[in-house]
Amino acid sequence: MNRNVCWAGVDIGGTNTEVGFLDSSGNFLLQAGFPTNAEGSPQKFVDKLRDVLDSNQAQLTHSHEFRGIGLAAPNVNYVSGLIESPVNFDWGTINLVDLLAQHYDIPIRIMKDANAAALGEMKYGLAQGMKNFVVITLGTGLGSGIVVNGELVHGANGLAGEIGHTVAINNGRRCACGRQGCLETYTSANGLRRTTLELMSTKSYNSELREISFNDLTAKMISDAAGEGDQLALAVLDFTAQILGRKLADVVAFLDPEAFIVMGGVARTGDLLLAPTREYFEAHLLTMYKGKVSILRSNMKDGQAAILGAATLVFDANEKHE
Amino acid sequence: MNRNVCWAGVDIGGTNTEVGFLDSSGNFLLQAGFPTNAEGSPQKFVDKLRDVLDSNQAQLTHSHEFRGIGLAAPNVNYVSGLIESPVNFDWGTINLVDLLAQHYDIPIRIMKDANAAALGEMKYGLAQGMKNFVVITLGTGLGSGIVVNGELVHGANGLAGEIGHTVAINNGRRCACGRQGCLETYTSANGLRRTTLELMSTKSYNSELREISFNDLTAKMISDAAGEGDQLALAVLDFTAQILGRKLADVVAFLDPEAFIVMGGVARTGDLLLAPTREYFEAHLLTMYKGKVSILRSNMKDGQAAILGAATLVFDANEKHE
Repeated sequence: MNRNVCWAGVDIGGTNTEVGFLDSSGNFLLQAGFPTNAEGSPQKFVDKLRDVLDSNQAQLTHSHEFRGIGLAAPNVNYVSGLIESPVNFDWGTINLVDLLAQHYDIPIRIMKDANAAALGEMKYGLAQGMKNFVVITLGTGLGSGIVVNGELVHGANGLAGEIGHTVAINNGRRCACGRQGCLETYTSANGLRRTTLELMSTKSYNSELREISFNDLTAKMISDAAGEGDQLALAVLDFTAQILGRKLADVVAFLDPEAFIVMGGVARTGDLLLAPTREYFEAHLLTMYKGKVSILRSNMKDGQAAILGAATLVFDANEKHE
Repeated sequence: MNRNVCWAGVDIGGTNTEVGFLDSSGNFLLQAGFPTNAEGSPQKFVDKLRDVLDSNQAQLTHSHEFRGIGLAAPNVNYVSGLIESPVNFDWGTINLVDLLAQHYDIPIRIMKDANAAALGEMKYGLAQGMKNFVVITLGTGLGSGIVVNGELVHGANGLAGEIGHTVAINNGRRCACGRQGCLETYTSANGLRRTTLELMSTKSYNSELREISFNDLTAKMISDAAGEGDQLALAVLDFTAQILGRKLADVVAFLDPEAFIVMGGVARTGDLLLAPTREYFEAHLLTMYKGKVSILRSNMKDGQAAILGAATLVFDANEKHE
């Protein structure tokens, strides 16, 4: 048989979903994105995902045989494979693998998005050769994928990695999870928006952001304003960097990783956020770690680390079944 | 050869050191303790440790051949085997294995105390059969031993587990590590003493503890007073439980362990501390974990979990060399 083979990886985010088709070396043959519409029904999402998978696959159909689908999504329970009521989604608990399997007769696997991203970085990205590192996804929400002794940490219930729901500020902001002060309420895209409003109320900086309503405000607007020197936006990033830098220093004291790899929409802010984050991080590290632990920005495009990691699940499935 | 064999395990704490002699099934043949005197020189400690090892071994010498020494100490770097300037010791960085090896021609190994305790609990204690759990040592300082996927977490630099130096209260109490607000400044024996003084200054409870100077005050006095219904002492334990319960809930969000096993001098307070800790813990857990994660008190005596775990290092050394 002369035809090549291909696999799809899908990264389902709170705002956008990215679909990639990969060859057996992990090269991207095609990539396409669409709005997740997490407020809509899961069935609508499945229909849209099928459209995108099928129309993209059609472009490859003469050259490549389609062999499997790997899915990356928030709050995936490693043990059950269910997506368990992610905070930023109105889907409840769903079995996305079963919903898709009604339409595709090829292996389909699912994994938590940040874990998939950690796998992707370990096999193809900045974490190649690392045995202890943590991926931080700064998007609509905030997740982490933890690798210890060269293995993903899934935990006793298959739900490890919710660093976004550890406390950054005691009795702080209300979180959608029902608790208060969670890291996610400060350093996710929504956290940046909340901080912008807070600093508008407590500081007197002039800012173009004062023209924009909370509902219209996006993390990208804040990042763009900061890039143009807007003092309010810069103060938002500085506050965010302080919260994030301290929390990452705590992770070092606890787990002693060699690096953090940061990705996701908010990470696109780049050094505007990461440079002050590194400063606060170094200042809060235990002495023995100072200068030893890197905060790296993933050099892959949107969702590609998670797409690669998720696709790895079905690469493996094929290896086992052949 | 009809003689039995034995191994020594040594648990070096900030206040007391416990020495145990074990047979090959992990049974305690003898146990003896002495004050560590962490303000004295390391050489003085080595001399005292040799006295205790030799006098105890003399009692066993006709029945048991002495085959190895396993040491458990704070801040042991897993990679180098050095004790690296523990916060509550004036020893600086020392190579205790080399200091002892000048006097004993048998295998000597060393490991961080909380990791040794985790090994001991996994092989002989409450964690038998567990793959994901965290040991918390509440003593002069506060440490943790983390087990993930059935393996100890050492980290990239061999220093993982310093949960005592993650932040409990932002910009909180000064810590001996040079930072502020570390968990250890609230929930160690010293933390209890500091909280007692703080509550004496802010509350108006009558208390027998008001007769005692800070330097004379011990965690045991606070615990005993609480046991007698002293309102100030009970408030100290309640505050401590709140800080500890919240932090353990954060560990669950991050690592998803099946249980915590608590030990050390402060844990001897028993349910006076652990019952309210469990309440605050449950209240702060993410919904999906409520009722699923146990906080257990080790059922071994002082230092025995760490003694057993450290001795395991030389059991293994013998197995490999024979």
